[in-house]
Amino acid sequence: MQSPVPHLVTAQSGPLLKLESTLLAKAADIEAWFRSQWLKTSPPFYSSVDLRNAGFKLAPVDTNLFPGGFNNLNPAFEALCIHALQTSIARVCPTAKGILLVPENHTRNKFYLENVATLFSLIQKAGYRVHIGTLIPDITEPTEITLEISGRKLLLEPITRDAGYVSVGGFTPCSILLNNDLSSGIPAILEDLEQDIIPPMGLGWHARTKSSHFGFYRDVAKEFGEHIGIDPWLVDPLFRNCGQINFAKREGEECLASNVEMLLEDIKAKYDEYGITDEPFVIIKSEAGTYGMGVMTARSVDDVRNMNRKARTHMSSAKEGNEVSGAIIQEGVHTTEKLGEDQATAEPVVYMIDQFVVGGFYRLNSQRGAQENLNAPGMRFEPLAFETPCTHPDPNCGPDDRPNRFYAYGVVARLAALAAAREIEAEAKGN
Amino acid sequence: MQSPVPHLVTAQSGPLLKLESTLLAKAADIEAWFRSQWLKTSPPFYSSVDLRNAGFKLAPVDTNLFPGGFNNLNPAFEALCIHALQTSIARVCPTAKGILLVPENHTRNKFYLENVATLFSLIQKAGYRVHIGTLIPDITEPTEITLEISGRKLLLEPITRDAGYVSVGGFTPCSILLNNDLSSGIPAILEDLEQDIIPPMGLGWHARTKSSHFGFYRDVAKEFGEHIGIDPWLVDPLFRNCGQINFAKREGEECLASNVEMLLEDIKAKYDEYGITDEPFVIIKSEAGTYGMGVMTARSVDDVRNMNRKARTHMSSAKEGNEVSGAIIQEGVHTTEKLGEDQATAEPVVYMIDQFVVGGFYRLNSQRGAQENLNAPGMRFEPLAFETPCTHPDPNCGPDDRPNRFYAYGVVARLAALAAAREIEAEAKGN
Repeated sequence: MQSPVPHLVTAQSGPLLKLESTLLAKAADIEAWFRSQWLKTSPPFYSSVDLRNAGFKLAPVDTNLFPGGFNNLNPAFEALCIHALQTSIARVCPTAKGILLVPENHTRNKFYLENVATLFSLIQKAGYRVHIGTLIPDITEPTEITLEISGRKLLLEPITRDAGYVSVGGFTPCSILLNNDLSSGIPAILEDLEQDIIPPMGLGWHARTKSSHFGFYRDVAKEFGEHIGIDPWLVDPLFRNCGQINFAKREGEECLASNVEMLLEDIKAKYDEYGITDEPFVIIKSEAGTYGMGVMTARSVDDVRNMNRKARTHMSSAKEGNEVSGAIIQEGVHTTEKLGEDQATAEPVVYMIDQFVVGGFYRLNSQRGAQENLNAPGMRFEPLAFETPCTHPDPNCGPDDRPNRFYAYGVVARLAALAAAREIEAEAKGN
Repeated sequence: MQSPVPHLVTAQSGPLLKLESTLLAKAADIEAWFRSQWLKTSPPFYSSVDLRNAGFKLAPVDTNLFPGGFNNLNPAFEALCIHALQTSIARVCPTAKGILLVPENHTRNKFYLENVATLFSLIQKAGYRVHIGTLIPDITEPTEITLEISGRKLLLEPITRDAGYVSVGGFTPCSILLNNDLSSGIPAILEDLEQDIIPPMGLGWHARTKSSHFGFYRDVAKEFGEHIGIDPWLVDPLFRNCGQINFAKREGEECLASNVEMLLEDIKAKYDEYGITDEPFVIIKSEAGTYGMGVMTARSVDDVRNMNRKARTHMSSAKEGNEVSGAIIQEGVHTTEKLGEDQATAEPVVYMIDQFVVGGFYRLNSQRGAQENLNAPGMRFEPLAFETPCTHPDPNCGPDDRPNRFYAYGVVARLAALAAAREIEAEAKGN
């Protein structure tokens, strides 16, 4: 087996090693800080965070509150996921006996179906009755499908509603667990239910914006930086946003161009401060985009001004055909991690259930460079990449050794989960 | 590697397979029942339970609230132990930053020291500052010892007291975690502290009795049996107790003899009910005994009446020289599990932290038979024996397949932990 840890090819690993060393030296403080934060704000039910490791900086670039990809975690972490689910479900509904899992509608994505089967199995093994309720209108009776990859079977059942409760067959669950990011809005059948829905539907991509999340993240990074004595920029990507942009209609282009220009200048200033000679770049993303849709890289304001029709169409596409409006312009964080024989560009993805880091994997793309979005054609996963679930550093290893590198991933991913927790709390208060 | 699961050599595996099948079929009910029980009664901080698997019966025979042997768990379960510790410590002291671990005094037991080092490391990796405070009077300054087996180092620090608080060096912990069963009583330095002490000191072997524990267990087994529809005897060893017995002084011998006689008759009646043709036997144990001391097997009342001086001396010995008074006479549960090339007699030992099963191992003794105490000279451990931590059944396997056999172990072990939880609660109320 190849080494599960990518070789750091950058010459600029100094500051990251410094960051990692600081995180390790302060691990007990950091854990106590997280504990105190989780007492104030309940963690998300589950989440996954895409990280980018630039050598000089380690930062989240996307936080998913309806994570797919549980099938890509190391099977050795199964028991960990089960324990964490027991905590997570007990937090929502201490007396729960049954869970209705509502997945995405794309039953033709064989990888996604593996994720559903894995989640189903984890919840079942955690000691709950679980059924899969589908929102696909064509499925009007219980339908068993056999998964192409693993051969596992899934029973998709149509959801029925009676007053304030939904059921499948004779099963009326205590809680409904969404693994559907609601890109096309809240389904009528789930509106105003008496049952608990987790995560809250207001966090679906029909309503959530990336800039809101990264606004909360900015505050979290600042508090964390003050607490452990680091420049928050080392874990926080700068960003700006344009509310009214519409690529298809060519609206808001000036807003975008001026924000790209300002952000590139801000990044350059931080690079100068740290003596980093790389070329700054920004990533422009749809406010509500998922699956890597509507993402582009810009190295200069001209990259935006000179967008051709093809690029505009790409930027205005989104999942389930939603028309994108609003964009976040985020500091591009190089990824200096490379993995495998083809030295594919790699970024870590860290999974959490409740406050617990339960594992992760590398997203790889040998067709993409260090400055590009990897969630694109050519993408593959390295499910066994993380030997340890990123929860605990080993004081007897060096800062760049496996358990310790992974610990740094787990710290930064949990900062993003904390930002999401505050986002959820604010949403619940109607802010 | 040899198979991690012992071969069931008994012909009487029918009823156990039936028990296991019932536990599997009702897993969701069982888990919901445990969850409702843990909402009523907090689980012990940690515990380990010795089980005996007779083929027709699976029952706990000892529940340890100060478990050693964490070094014998599968290292793959480390992350599981860490997560469970985070839950367990948060339950006791949500704002805890530091833990003082107080181990047993026997620093010459190289195996026990490995357990201390493993516990230390687990607590540290769970994100807490941890120091080891020793009660050994001869250690008057911080003393580093190097472990003979693993080469790990441990710093033993003398405990100092200032008003209601204990410290080691400049470290004053929020909580004190006992891994010392207090066989010789509560140390004066730990009396009436303002800090939390876990587990409660009233559960030390200076005060706890086995018959009290198995009294609580009897109730738990009865409720559980009613809930899932099984005869509680299938998971509960019958017992009787003699309060005033003193082997050295030959006091209470008649009480013992009559109780042995009655218990053997009761066992015979159950054997007849199930058509079991094995010879009934009882185990006589010191009420407060640990480390397998003061344990004997009796197959008839004559075995007790004809005890010679050597046997009396054995029965009156106990850890740290405590004089035994009081004995429990427990239904002997054959162990039909055998492991290894020498087909050593084996019994499972299951470990729990908070409500979570975190693993286990087999205690083996090739010099002992199916009706004898295995915690005796010749004992060894099979640390890697459990591939899964006993938490979750796999509905796709047969009842006797590994994850499912282990699930049954985990269920019965948790019943014992629940009995201990009620014992702790009663102790806290001063009952």
